[in-house]
Amino acid sequence: MEIASMNNDEKPSNFFTKGLLWFKSLHEKIYTKIVGIAKQFKTIAKDDPRRVIHSLKVGLSLTLVSLFYYFQPLYNGFGVSTMWAIMTVVVVFEFSVGATLGKGLNRGMATLLAGALGVGAHYLASATGKVAEPILLGLFVFLQAFALTFIRFFPQVKARYDYGMLILILTFCLVSISGFRVDEIVDMAHKRISTILMGASVCVIVSIVVCPVWAGEDLHKLVAQNMEKLGKFLEGFGDEIFKSSEDSTESKVTKTSLIEYKSVLNSKNSEETLANFAKWEPGHGQFKYRHPWKQYLKIGGLIRQCAYRIDALNAYINSEIKAPEEIREMIKETSMKMSIECGKALKELSKSMRKMNLPISADEHVTNAKNSAKKLNSLLKSRINNWEEINLLQVIPLATIASILTDIVICVEEIGQGVNELASLANFKTTKSSKEIINTNKVIVVEKIELSNNHVVITINEQNMKL
Amino acid sequence: MEIASMNNDEKPSNFFTKGLLWFKSLHEKIYTKIVGIAKQFKTIAKDDPRRVIHSLKVGLSLTLVSLFYYFQPLYNGFGVSTMWAIMTVVVVFEFSVGATLGKGLNRGMATLLAGALGVGAHYLASATGKVAEPILLGLFVFLQAFALTFIRFFPQVKARYDYGMLILILTFCLVSISGFRVDEIVDMAHKRISTILMGASVCVIVSIVVCPVWAGEDLHKLVAQNMEKLGKFLEGFGDEIFKSSEDSTESKVTKTSLIEYKSVLNSKNSEETLANFAKWEPGHGQFKYRHPWKQYLKIGGLIRQCAYRIDALNAYINSEIKAPEEIREMIKETSMKMSIECGKALKELSKSMRKMNLPISADEHVTNAKNSAKKLNSLLKSRINNWEEINLLQVIPLATIASILTDIVICVEEIGQGVNELASLANFKTTKSSKEIINTNKVIVVEKIELSNNHVVITINEQNMKL
Repeated sequence: MEIASMNNDEKPSNFFTKGLLWFKSLHEKIYTKIVGIAKQFKTIAKDDPRRVIHSLKVGLSLTLVSLFYYFQPLYNGFGVSTMWAIMTVVVVFEFSVGATLGKGLNRGMATLLAGALGVGAHYLASATGKVAEPILLGLFVFLQAFALTFIRFFPQVKARYDYGMLILILTFCLVSISGFRVDEIVDMAHKRISTILMGASVCVIVSIVVCPVWAGEDLHKLVAQNMEKLGKFLEGFGDEIFKSSEDSTESKVTKTSLIEYKSVLNSKNSEETLANFAKWEPGHGQFKYRHPWKQYLKIGGLIRQCAYRIDALNAYINSEIKAPEEIREMIKETSMKMSIECGKALKELSKSMRKMNLPISADEHVTNAKNSAKKLNSLLKSRINNWEEINLLQVIPLATIASILTDIVICVEEIGQGVNELASLANFKTTKSSKEIINTNKVIVVEKIELSNNHVVITINEQNMKL
Repeated sequence: MEIASMNNDEKPSNFFTKGLLWFKSLHEKIYTKIVGIAKQFKTIAKDDPRRVIHSLKVGLSLTLVSLFYYFQPLYNGFGVSTMWAIMTVVVVFEFSVGATLGKGLNRGMATLLAGALGVGAHYLASATGKVAEPILLGLFVFLQAFALTFIRFFPQVKARYDYGMLILILTFCLVSISGFRVDEIVDMAHKRISTILMGASVCVIVSIVVCPVWAGEDLHKLVAQNMEKLGKFLEGFGDEIFKSSEDSTESKVTKTSLIEYKSVLNSKNSEETLANFAKWEPGHGQFKYRHPWKQYLKIGGLIRQCAYRIDALNAYINSEIKAPEEIREMIKETSMKMSIECGKALKELSKSMRKMNLPISADEHVTNAKNSAKKLNSLLKSRINNWEEINLLQVIPLATIASILTDIVICVEEIGQGVNELASLANFKTTKSSKEIINTNKVIVVEKIELSNNHVVITINEQNMKL
């Protein structure tokens, strides 16, 4: 008994200190956790402030829809069905207008179709008598669930109508089975469809009216941005690889901008998702309703091809190149020119795409890059006989870089063609009057305009511009 | 009148022929359309027969759940709430067990939590009086929708709890607002939660019991398959690039197997999705509950790095190489060896991963490839002085191929390390007894085992094996 009481005497203080310590450490842990989460909140909001706006929009839409509950006349009309409006808002409201519209239309159309089919199935089954009815209904449910679930695997369906298929299965089951119990099936279907349409309308209106996020615009910007990232790499690559070892101190700043291209390697999925959403969107800003979104996927694919080559180049960015001075200089000049001209072409293409202008000087940059590639080839051919005792091993990295750059020139040319196709499909504007063509240092002066027979003859005179 | 009647006489036959033709062409159109769809059905089912089984499983689950409606006692207990069981099945049933479990758990937990919060909010609001109640409820709805929608942008939340967040918003709104009208809120919540749990249980049980599709197993197979695809390319590449132009007839067959690697370039997304699902899955087959799924993503990333290099190599597969015979032969031998040994290493790694055995000979293949790379380097160094008048331009493609192959050797080595890490994390089995190591032509004979102090000393003797 004494021992027990002693233990009891000691325990409380011990327990108390331990508890205090535990509480203190818990408090600290929770504090650091909360600070961490708050920081993450901030970064996520800063990365894309539209996220905050989107959250506010969802809150607003839900509050709007929940008003239905408070207005007595509306509630009396629809009763518990008002619930479907809330469900629709929560499920349909997406980040971009295209996604919201797509889901809303899918939900609306699928509900209508499934409602009709469900009512039909219900009447058909109830006509067969009390015994066969549940069996027939069970069969209907099984068959439509099987068929529609399988159809969801079709790539075309998966891309655009996946959600509609889900709602089709759901609504058909609910209508056909609940019809087995509730008599006023048509009335119920009517109420449900009205509330769903109401909810979907609120979503679509809020999504379009309050700071809309257009998936099409995002896709447009993403593709242009990806081009720019590759352009940045190629412009910086020449300096980075041929720099002397002394000026390596400042390379850290440029290096972070160089590895931006890495995100391009895995951009396929987001591009496809955005293109699918964009197809649902009405005309907005510079984009018409049937803007050629497919062409963006094509350009995106070409950009990725180029990014793979750039990733192969990037492996050489940290390796030291010990080629003989003569070869180094020769390859350096042409390679840098190729790299920089490709970079300029991509940046120009990106810029003209952003502004939806016809690319002006991109073709010229590509031609320059191609000429450099040709020059390199002829240099290698002509001067090889003069060299003796060159170390092939030391030349290989340089040769590889030059070779990959030649591939990149071809890629960039294809990207340029892709952008030109897009420009003609989407009617990009010309920026300057046809009188002046920038960047060629030439001025075309219209000298004479005359009408002969049915033709207009314009005599022009090309002059070098004095800069 | 006469003209009119004449026209009327002519019209019918004309109209009839036209109608017949129209009907015929429509009939043909519909027929070809149906045949096309049927063909697509067949391909989709053939590509992955589990899709048919999945569709059957969904049909089965829905029919099972709809039975609730037919059993009078069950229906009397739950009433209209039975609807929630059907909704749960339609929404929660996914292709893989992991996805189904993830969605089911998300839905269940979120419903419980949101139900409790909703009831709390309802009581809190109703305590403030009739005027403040709707305002306070509206505020609650707005705030929780705003906060939870924003939290959905957190990458960790998006990956695993996105659906739960959605259900949290939905249920909270439904419970807190509908509570404004319906008095028996707790009873309703109880019914709803029970039916949702019922629906989710049916999904999970059917999904696990009837031909389960495990996301983890799919991920495991996908990564192994991707490795094999790259291995196939590398094994075939040597023959393809150095073949003489005569035997180009049979190259078509091999070429289709060579471009299989292209699918690896864009595999990131599917790997990440599968890994997220796999984390929800219980232990199954060879995989324990906490199988290191993260390591698969790491290996997948390394494989993709290698695939980018291979894509750069692939550009040379159709180009003719006109290097001088001597250099060609020299580079050919070592390059082919590098390529083939890398291919063998990848295939061996893939095979051992599939069987979850420790890779035995992969390291050796990598070492062989590295030795070939070294040999190529020393060859290039030593023999370069003997050549005069080599055409550097003709050597460049070969040099580039050799250089990229050297990069690939490094990639393959890293993949090997990744697989070895996985092997130790997941306790891969050793295939043969430690006495024999295959492929090294050596036998290790255990000569003596003795206990000294706390250690076991094993004396071994390495002997060359007579084959």
